[in-house]
Amino acid sequence: MNRKTDTPVTVIGLGLMGRALAAAFLKAGHPTTVWNRTTSKADQLVAEGARLAPTVGDALKAGSLTIICVTDYPAMHELLGASESELDGMMLINLTSGDSAQAREAAQWAEQRGAHYLDGAIMAIPSGIGTAEAVILHSGPQPYFEAHKSTLDALGTVTYLGADHGLASLYDVAGLAMMWSVLNAWLQGTALLRTAGVDAATYAPFAQQIAAGVAEWLPGYAEQIDSGSFPAEVSALETDARAITHLIEESEAVGVNTELPKLIKAMVDRSIAAGHGGEQYPVLIEEFSKPRND
Amino acid sequence: MNRKTDTPVTVIGLGLMGRALAAAFLKAGHPTTVWNRTTSKADQLVAEGARLAPTVGDALKAGSLTIICVTDYPAMHELLGASESELDGMMLINLTSGDSAQAREAAQWAEQRGAHYLDGAIMAIPSGIGTAEAVILHSGPQPYFEAHKSTLDALGTVTYLGADHGLASLYDVAGLAMMWSVLNAWLQGTALLRTAGVDAATYAPFAQQIAAGVAEWLPGYAEQIDSGSFPAEVSALETDARAITHLIEESEAVGVNTELPKLIKAMVDRSIAAGHGGEQYPVLIEEFSKPRND
Repeated sequence: MNRKTDTPVTVIGLGLMGRALAAAFLKAGHPTTVWNRTTSKADQLVAEGARLAPTVGDALKAGSLTIICVTDYPAMHELLGASESELDGMMLINLTSGDSAQAREAAQWAEQRGAHYLDGAIMAIPSGIGTAEAVILHSGPQPYFEAHKSTLDALGTVTYLGADHGLASLYDVAGLAMMWSVLNAWLQGTALLRTAGVDAATYAPFAQQIAAGVAEWLPGYAEQIDSGSFPAEVSALETDARAITHLIEESEAVGVNTELPKLIKAMVDRSIAAGHGGEQYPVLIEEFSKPRND
Repeated sequence: MNRKTDTPVTVIGLGLMGRALAAAFLKAGHPTTVWNRTTSKADQLVAEGARLAPTVGDALKAGSLTIICVTDYPAMHELLGASESELDGMMLINLTSGDSAQAREAAQWAEQRGAHYLDGAIMAIPSGIGTAEAVILHSGPQPYFEAHKSTLDALGTVTYLGADHGLASLYDVAGLAMMWSVLNAWLQGTALLRTAGVDAATYAPFAQQIAAGVAEWLPGYAEQIDSGSFPAEVSALETDARAITHLIEESEAVGVNTELPKLIKAMVDRSIAAGHGGEQYPVLIEEFSKPRND
């Protein structure tokens, strides 16, 4: 990989995550300027070679790109708004947590002030930053991403999603929904199996195999959604409904929680009531795509 | 693999799945006897070399082992009860769908009549039978499984779970819970991304990667459950709760369904209220292991 390590960078916001980002740049050899409201947060980074900028404006001028990682979007607006005149021509990459609407608004705000703006989301914990396991999502104009990818590579596996600045936030929460759902399904199964004396470690590899196996179906099922046609090639929703009833009854019989199974059943039942009983599971996209109205 | 193909087998019940099982035995070279209440269901199998037994009792005597795949457990009891005196010494493998209590009762019933009994569950659709993708779970006395595994191999990937006859049913519904949960999380994400014009095929590989990645955590997380200790090595439940709120707010903002995110949040909130906010996600096993009481 052609990684440039002499590009000066700036990191604004030195919480746990911001400090991890700055440390990863330093480790990769980048001249790194940092700024934080509470300057003591920079002590360790300065000891490792970072330069502490006296003002946000000074910090912005020091780097070829500036990573922003603060508490929330209002905090970002407050910080950068104070140095508004100095945003012209700056490359800002905002990794602050927020939603897609905030990201789009921030992009517009920054572009009106002459800045180049990418929005991002970090799918990692601070200790993972700087390793390939840290997935960092970016969205906004592709040329900005391409111009700075070799610098961003110091942070982890950096990914570009598209021109819409809201995409990084949307992919982030979508990925988190998958994370909690895999964990919850595993917990449901673990709870069931523990009633028969099976420990969690015994069940985990089975759950892992099922999750990875089902994940492989997704690209194929996606074709059904994109074509809007859901033939029951594998099984019909009515067949799923009967099996979900088994899951609910088994959970009740052994005395474990039934909220997750009942939610699955409720959504399947509504889809069947809407006439989709002979179609395949991905037809539930129609239920997932609208607020519940009953 | 040392697969015996000259063992005579019997299949009772020739619905879609039963016919697929018999066809797989025939294809592997096993002398195969079949029985079904409606004899015409056997026509194709007889054309392929199966023998149609005139009675259940005759069918049971023909095979070294008998696979039972009928509508439900009452149907099985009715069929085999009529030939009660002939069960002594028979090897029965019951792949009929049912719950763990039914499996345990059937095992007791069969053993009282001198039969050897394994309970099983088929994690496959009929067209998958006979391929490695068809996972067939077995539970009951291990010697019975070991004695017949080389014959059962004709059906797919056969797996032994343990001596408790209820395990096959429990693993089956647990695996199905994982299946629907991965699909639902993917549908939630797909619904979110489609509001930004991202098609399902574009999002699917991302969802697939997250699901498979999170699945790899399960063995490690299982250790927390088995030890009953949930230190926040990766993140604390309170941090998850804030991110789940992001998911709910984002789903509401773009107008998609929020039932799945809200269920996740409700269970996390209850766990935090029970004092587990500083612990790690698998502590939710306590919520999943009990009926909801509020």
